[in-house]
Amino acid sequence: MPPTIRWAEDRVVIVDQTALPDEIRLIEISSPEEMEAAISRLAVRGAPALAIAGAFGVALAVLASERHALASTYVSTSARRLRSARPTAVTLAWGVDQVIALADQGSAAVIAAASELARLDVEANRRLAMRGAAWVREAVSDRPITIATHCNTGAFACVEWGTALGIIEVLHSTGEVEHVFVDETRPLLQGARLTAVELQGLRIPYSIIVDSAAPSLIARGRVGLVVVGADRIAANGDVVNKIGTLPLALAAARYGVPFVVAAPEATIDVAVATGADIEIEVRDPEEVLTFRGSRTAPEEAMAFNPAFDVTPADLVSVIVTEDRVVSPALGEVLMAT
Amino acid sequence: MPPTIRWAEDRVVIVDQTALPDEIRLIEISSPEEMEAAISRLAVRGAPALAIAGAFGVALAVLASERHALASTYVSTSARRLRSARPTAVTLAWGVDQVIALADQGSAAVIAAASELARLDVEANRRLAMRGAAWVREAVSDRPITIATHCNTGAFACVEWGTALGIIEVLHSTGEVEHVFVDETRPLLQGARLTAVELQGLRIPYSIIVDSAAPSLIARGRVGLVVVGADRIAANGDVVNKIGTLPLALAAARYGVPFVVAAPEATIDVAVATGADIEIEVRDPEEVLTFRGSRTAPEEAMAFNPAFDVTPADLVSVIVTEDRVVSPALGEVLMAT
Repeated sequence: MPPTIRWAEDRVVIVDQTALPDEIRLIEISSPEEMEAAISRLAVRGAPALAIAGAFGVALAVLASERHALASTYVSTSARRLRSARPTAVTLAWGVDQVIALADQGSAAVIAAASELARLDVEANRRLAMRGAAWVREAVSDRPITIATHCNTGAFACVEWGTALGIIEVLHSTGEVEHVFVDETRPLLQGARLTAVELQGLRIPYSIIVDSAAPSLIARGRVGLVVVGADRIAANGDVVNKIGTLPLALAAARYGVPFVVAAPEATIDVAVATGADIEIEVRDPEEVLTFRGSRTAPEEAMAFNPAFDVTPADLVSVIVTEDRVVSPALGEVLMAT
Repeated sequence: MPPTIRWAEDRVVIVDQTALPDEIRLIEISSPEEMEAAISRLAVRGAPALAIAGAFGVALAVLASERHALASTYVSTSARRLRSARPTAVTLAWGVDQVIALADQGSAAVIAAASELARLDVEANRRLAMRGAAWVREAVSDRPITIATHCNTGAFACVEWGTALGIIEVLHSTGEVEHVFVDETRPLLQGARLTAVELQGLRIPYSIIVDSAAPSLIARGRVGLVVVGADRIAANGDVVNKIGTLPLALAAARYGVPFVVAAPEATIDVAVATGADIEIEVRDPEEVLTFRGSRTAPEEAMAFNPAFDVTPADLVSVIVTEDRVVSPALGEVLMAT
């Protein structure tokens, strides 16, 4: 599988997430405007990959401004637009911010810094996965484990090594995974379209389920662990993640199943006190009213389409990053590292 | 709108639930075998409508046995097959049982009894709706109310007057409904395909949401009431209903929102002590892996497709029937009436 996102000479090459699972379509992105569009239509998505997309987007802006002798405001305007292409995932802004200060040093410096972020993403997620798997081995005695997960947190959400799915992969490598229940993840089906492909590639036994089925599987004792990613985490440990994460957390808490959030440090936003302070992206109602192009509801129907929900800190057993394990459910809060 | 199910001379006419919302297709059912197939493929569905389908199915069997001088076992075999066409909804078996003893008296007697059940369904659901609305007026002070609901519990699930949606209709008639959030209800989209059509017909403002979004709307204080139907209710008040009901109940309990189950008396099965004793129908994985005929997952993907979940009694504020209001959350249990 090619990396989900990489720099190639004077452009960015991404695996178009909207074409999966039908095909692995590589698309080339040559300008910050194209990057902004790719982010908006979710051709590139997943909190870790968005960090790299933001940084590479700045690199494309600096390159364009050099080549076409554009006004000095072009780079800063591009950076501002990239930062806000999706309002909820803090990693996108983080990626932009990591390289924007280098813009004055020219495109080579920005490209090098952004490429280094991509390299570090792989390294950090591997550390995160090892740390998470170690925590699970301590916390879950009944093994092999049946795991429930939501959305996509594998390589397709990152550069080439996943977060939550990375933990599952490590546990699988030592024979500790019995089965994975994958939420299909409506409306855009990242679970059915992306995570299923990744689990198949890893030869991990799995079943796709409708999102609303996971709580009952947890209630029936069929799930030993829930592990998900995050798009932004507040200082108190509230976790903003793909819509549909909260019901998993509610069920896990009631039925005593560990609820693990796997997220890079860049996901943690200590500037926001709680999840209530985080803007939740509301997307096009058509995503709900259609399903891969086919209409699901009457023509005149209305829909409401929030893309994320907030899982309150007290329901989060642990947040695992590349550097630490923090337990919001035990009252631990997050500090800047 | 024609009745969802009715007797016509020597056959049954139903509104095919699988053709909605694209068309209101009436289909004629002339034998118990056709009825069994219609039940299995969900052309007729909804606990109240299934009771009538079961009774009419017996009538068709008696009629066929008279016309073609079939062996005496034909009617009892047909009844047994109809009873188990779907294992979870107790109303189907109840409907069969209401008329089977009349088989010896001939088809006219069975048809009359089954038609009377259909008439009583309308009457009972009207009473249920009035009773439920009265309870809501007492329990919810903040009006008009925003209501969340799941699956389809309107006329399409019954003969011509709904259960949970009947309560919403009564509240709407007095201006007490602000908005309804309708779960699309994967995998078969009864919310998006059926409930949306009904709400539109009733001119009640609504938005379709993905199933997993409802808990976060409840968490954000945007829902004042959750009202759902039921397929079977155990003696202790555990409620078996369409997959995806449990997450609503978990969220409603945590955030202090009343969780109301609207269900005819025939839904209550005092013969089972708890929800754990109720068989949960597992349906074809293809329902999860496709969406109105379009594939959602990789070709080799596996899925698990339980059709119902069990909401534990302590999460159920009240069960409203045509005869009574019972509060499992307050420890009240159900007895035969």
